[in-house]
Amino acid sequence: MTEMFSDRQICIGVQQLIKSRAGCAHFQTVVESEPIQKPPPMAPRYAPSLRSRLGPLLLFLLSGFIISAFYFEIRDEAIPRDKYAEFQDVNVMVVLGFGFLCTFLVRHGFSSSGFNLFVATIATQWALILMGIESWYDKRRILVDLRSILVAEMSAASALISLGAVLGKVNPVQLILLALLEVPAFILNEWVLLSLLKVRPQNNIMLLHIFGAFFGLTLTWILHRKGSQQGFEKEKFDKKSGLFSMLGSLFLWMFWPTFNSVLVDDRFPERKLEAVCSTYLALAVSAVTAASVSVLSSARGKLNLIQMQSCILAGGVAVGASMTAVHQPWEAMAIGFTAAVLSTTGFKYLKSHMLLAFDCHDTAATLSTHGLPGLLGWFAHLILEIKNCDDHTVAIRFAVFHICTLLVTITISLTTGALTGFLLSLNFWRPPQNRKCFDDQAFWEFPHLAVRK
Amino acid sequence: MTEMFSDRQICIGVQQLIKSRAGCAHFQTVVESEPIQKPPPMAPRYAPSLRSRLGPLLLFLLSGFIISAFYFEIRDEAIPRDKYAEFQDVNVMVVLGFGFLCTFLVRHGFSSSGFNLFVATIATQWALILMGIESWYDKRRILVDLRSILVAEMSAASALISLGAVLGKVNPVQLILLALLEVPAFILNEWVLLSLLKVRPQNNIMLLHIFGAFFGLTLTWILHRKGSQQGFEKEKFDKKSGLFSMLGSLFLWMFWPTFNSVLVDDRFPERKLEAVCSTYLALAVSAVTAASVSVLSSARGKLNLIQMQSCILAGGVAVGASMTAVHQPWEAMAIGFTAAVLSTTGFKYLKSHMLLAFDCHDTAATLSTHGLPGLLGWFAHLILEIKNCDDHTVAIRFAVFHICTLLVTITISLTTGALTGFLLSLNFWRPPQNRKCFDDQAFWEFPHLAVRK
Amino acid sequence: MTEMFSDRQICIGVQQLIKSRAGCAHFQTVVESEPIQKPPPMAPRYAPSLRSRLGPLLLFLLSGFIISAFYFEIRDEAIPRDKYAEFQDVNVMVVLGFGFLCTFLVRHGFSSSGFNLFVATIATQWALILMGIESWYDKRRILVDLRSILVAEMSAASALISLGAVLGKVNPVQLILLALLEVPAFILNEWVLLSLLKVRPQNNIMLLHIFGAFFGLTLTWILHRKGSQQGFEKEKFDKKSGLFSMLGSLFLWMFWPTFNSVLVDDRFPERKLEAVCSTYLALAVSAVTAASVSVLSSARGKLNLIQMQSCILAGGVAVGASMTAVHQPWEAMAIGFTAAVLSTTGFKYLKSHMLLAFDCHDTAATLSTHGLPGLLGWFAHLILEIKNCDDHTVAIRFAVFHICTLLVTITISLTTGALTGFLLSLNFWRPPQNRKCFDDQAFWEFPHLAVRK
Repeated sequence: MTEMFSDRQICIGVQQLIKSRAGCAHFQTVVESEPIQKPPPMAPRYAPSLRSRLGPLLLFLLSGFIISAFYFEIRDEAIPRDKYAEFQDVNVMVVLGFGFLCTFLVRHGFSSSGFNLFVATIATQWALILMGIESWYDKRRILVDLRSILVAEMSAASALISLGAVLGKVNPVQLILLALLEVPAFILNEWVLLSLLKVRPQNNIMLLHIFGAFFGLTLTWILHRKGSQQGFEKEKFDKKSGLFSMLGSLFLWMFWPTFNSVLVDDRFPERKLEAVCSTYLALAVSAVTAASVSVLSSARGKLNLIQMQSCILAGGVAVGASMTAVHQPWEAMAIGFTAAVLSTTGFKYLKSHMLLAFDCHDTAATLSTHGLPGLLGWFAHLILEIKNCDDHTVAIRFAVFHICTLLVTITISLTTGALTGFLLSLNFWRPPQNRKCFDDQAFWEFPHLAVRK
Repeated sequence: MTEMFSDRQICIGVQQLIKSRAGCAHFQTVVESEPIQKPPPMAPRYAPSLRSRLGPLLLFLLSGFIISAFYFEIRDEAIPRDKYAEFQDVNVMVVLGFGFLCTFLVRHGFSSSGFNLFVATIATQWALILMGIESWYDKRRILVDLRSILVAEMSAASALISLGAVLGKVNPVQLILLALLEVPAFILNEWVLLSLLKVRPQNNIMLLHIFGAFFGLTLTWILHRKGSQQGFEKEKFDKKSGLFSMLGSLFLWMFWPTFNSVLVDDRFPERKLEAVCSTYLALAVSAVTAASVSVLSSARGKLNLIQMQSCILAGGVAVGASMTAVHQPWEAMAIGFTAAVLSTTGFKYLKSHMLLAFDCHDTAATLSTHGLPGLLGWFAHLILEIKNCDDHTVAIRFAVFHICTLLVTITISLTTGALTGFLLSLNFWRPPQNRKCFDDQAFWEFPHLAVRK
Repeated sequence: MTEMFSDRQICIGVQQLIKSRAGCAHFQTVVESEPIQKPPPMAPRYAPSLRSRLGPLLLFLLSGFIISAFYFEIRDEAIPRDKYAEFQDVNVMVVLGFGFLCTFLVRHGFSSSGFNLFVATIATQWALILMGIESWYDKRRILVDLRSILVAEMSAASALISLGAVLGKVNPVQLILLALLEVPAFILNEWVLLSLLKVRPQNNIMLLHIFGAFFGLTLTWILHRKGSQQGFEKEKFDKKSGLFSMLGSLFLWMFWPTFNSVLVDDRFPERKLEAVCSTYLALAVSAVTAASVSVLSSARGKLNLIQMQSCILAGGVAVGASMTAVHQPWEAMAIGFTAAVLSTTGFKYLKSHMLLAFDCHDTAATLSTHGLPGLLGWFAHLILEIKNCDDHTVAIRFAVFHICTLLVTITISLTTGALTGFLLSLNFWRPPQNRKCFDDQAFWEFPHLAVRK
């Protein structure tokens, strides 16, 4: 009797209907755990446990940090309170902004925000120790104050940028190793640029966008997984997860003027004002440009929220990288416009091209968010300096110097990124299986779901 | 055989069951795209594409802004850093607070937050140019500093208030036109009040609540759609979207003391302190009053979150409008109490009355959130000034002057609102169809849903 | 014919399938309202209405506050603007941080954030009045300035901590009574410590963690409900609600350095810097430790987000309680590490033990978040002071004094907590039924659901 339905058949029909719905994570989970779906015998049902890797690694790091802290000394100096407000702005950007920027991944919100928090704290403490080595060597003391924590957080941000490229495809142990290797590489880069090319600290640290982007891209290229060209099953967003990442993006957008101006010497408050206003104007232009290019490049004339979230920040990145040469508002706005155009088109076309042609899967579009605007900022810096320069010899000298800066940065980031990639590609770290990528359930407890099994 | 069910029949039954669920946006979407539901032949299935309208408009604006920026000059002056913290508070209110206040609309979160961002940035740049016209006329230079960006953002806020009245029923092109027309109208109003009536800048800008509310109401009255008396199908909230708007509301609530005190002259720090404390106390009383009236006016003794989100801000609005006359904490608290009572009852009864009796659909309850508390603040200002005045002649003169201020503001806002309304009601702008109102899918890409079609 | 299915049977099958899904609140609601499920005749279907309790109570409080405000006077004094930034940080922590920390409860988000707002505002105003009684007695004037509002907000925080222990199991009337009784108890405690033991104000107020935790635990122990040992049906989290509470937790984490440093005398900026840096380092170590212990104590090697959200704050609590004795970064980091270990293991094992063995259900794990780290901080303070003390007599005297401080605090908090508990356990306050616990629908309107009934 073909017209009859067994209970099971109806259930399956309902399941399929329900499964066809994107975004409601839990339900799918329950469905997954139904007895009908037998897992293939080769693949284990669960993501590998991290207990024997993550726990000891973190405890080892913690003891290292606390032992190093015996040499810490808080600088006995009155710091003006406004430094604290600036520090807090950057803190909010690093912890909340970067953390929530990637929560658009619908089943990966806990990991995006949680892993960001502890990678950021580990990287900051690690940077604090590394940056203090010189003073430790001289005086057996590492001086800690608001400025050193601030610079350490900004160095940690380079690791958070690279993290965006591999997020969802690696486990927290790998993310921590990434931070442990990238932070020294970035500080090495700073040290090389400072001692060889006398690059000023502010310009030096603003290379973090370029450094982080190229490091991350090399990493994700080496860690490429077979079968990921079609994209990952769970790499998508829904109406609510898009709003969480909007929140992260807006916090970055709002506080970016602080990020670009915080390292300007306090003795030149008018330079600081210039940095704040330029960044604000560039960001404002970026936001409008991102919307405009997004709608123009869409066949059905629609906007793409995830694209806009990345690209409204392009102006901030580019102006940051060229800050010391930008003196006119129109320059900042033109840079913001170009950066957003580059970034938006990069997000639209380059991201999938990178995946299909170069096997390079870039989760948070690091290349278009930080890489391209960073390079543009570097280029704008070059052009503006040459334009403002009367003497040809000086101009050529600056150009050579500036090109060397970029080459050194890219070389170090690619090399160390490749080394890190080879280390992270070891199976010893137990990376998640393809079908557990972009899935919180690989790393986080969901007790109420477990109960239902 | 009536007892038998075809596969299709079961599917339909399940669909209906599932459809009956409010709030889960995606699922409904998938169901909508099932082949069984044929769209009526007259109405197109999709919202009209904005590619040919929004893209060019934004590019045109951008080129205008960048060209004007050739006349921008950053004021060569050391600005105390605390101004920057104040500026950031207002920035957070305008970008995040207003942006997330309307994310309670369950299928309209991307639009509420995204459109707010780019309308705010366009309006701010536009206000910066308009406010600089005078100085451009004199010196061919528009001076930009933190204060001018701040005042520009506050003028932009008047457009964001009006935006709340029409949100969900218009497309982004119309929102941008709204901003382009309202900002000059508001600046014109300021200029008229300043030159004719010598209204002080701080009092002047605080009229933005009244101006924005009446502008928005006129607009939404002219843009009224047939068939919307029964409310829009998708105009509702759910548990998660209510929390997003709670976030926006809390950011407004927390930083409102800055909004009211930021324009107080820095040479009178005790006035600034007064403004901060008065606003804080008024807001605290408002929050409690809003809960109290909400529970008293509900038949089943329940609170309404969306009502509370609007009405906890009433105290801030009212005290802002009467700031220069409020000197005693009890005055601030009494104003906060009255404002919240007005606002809460307005939200409960006036909103639906306005829709049914005047065909005026007010999405974010602009009238009760900004209009009524603004008017109350204006009235409290009048009463307090007269009370503090010994001389009858002076009191009467002040009353006449104060009434004129209000009349001018309302006249200009109604007139320009009506003009804007007629412009926006043109079909050329391709407004969304009724059934696409309050729906992100009219303007935003959802690639993972598209794949399933 | 057993192979046939009636429409109803299919509906029931579908319902059961759908019900098995955790976390999607609305749907369940609709299902609940289906006619098939008859409620048992004894239990009323709806939570008791609060109209006759909450409305009048709030109005009575409001009139009390406004009448008291006739004696308020804003201190006529220039306050440095950096105080305002600090005040705002604490404001964000109290209103947003505490408010969103408990939104992980999937059907209780509106209540967690909404009730927190109005309990915080009521408690702050109440504290402002209570703290002003002395000056009112002398001069018939209660001076209000940023510092007094700040201290009032911090006293209010003690009530918000206790609120975390009973949240979800009581109604807003009971929460308000809790605040009205706890704030005077805490201020009494401060006054006793100050006048009897000369405890410095900063140390005094930092006892709020211990005071709030023990007050809350006593309360929840007295308010224990039969049948809650198995946990409440609706006490669970999902992917989205976990992110909302992550947001609250991060705001607390980011601004905790302000919370610990804000009361340090401005004349010792180097002490303030010390407080900020120590707290930051302790928090950073806490975040890493929380992850580490969480993964080590989980059988399947997974992290628990809710556990981490509580435990990353442990370092801040502990360092806050021992602030005046912490001078070395390693001390702060060691305290942060121990506090996080205590807090994480407490969350994992003690929380359920407290419920099963002592009938003490602690919603937000107040004991492990505030109680244990607070006690640890107290103990660290003792050890560090004795270590830094050369003279044995002085050390012993300090120990006696310090132990008395703790005993007084715990005695007062337990006594007043018990009294409050007995008052709140009256049926007159109409607490929600067991099956309405942790459910927004008991207190909040969901008009779109109502329409469908």
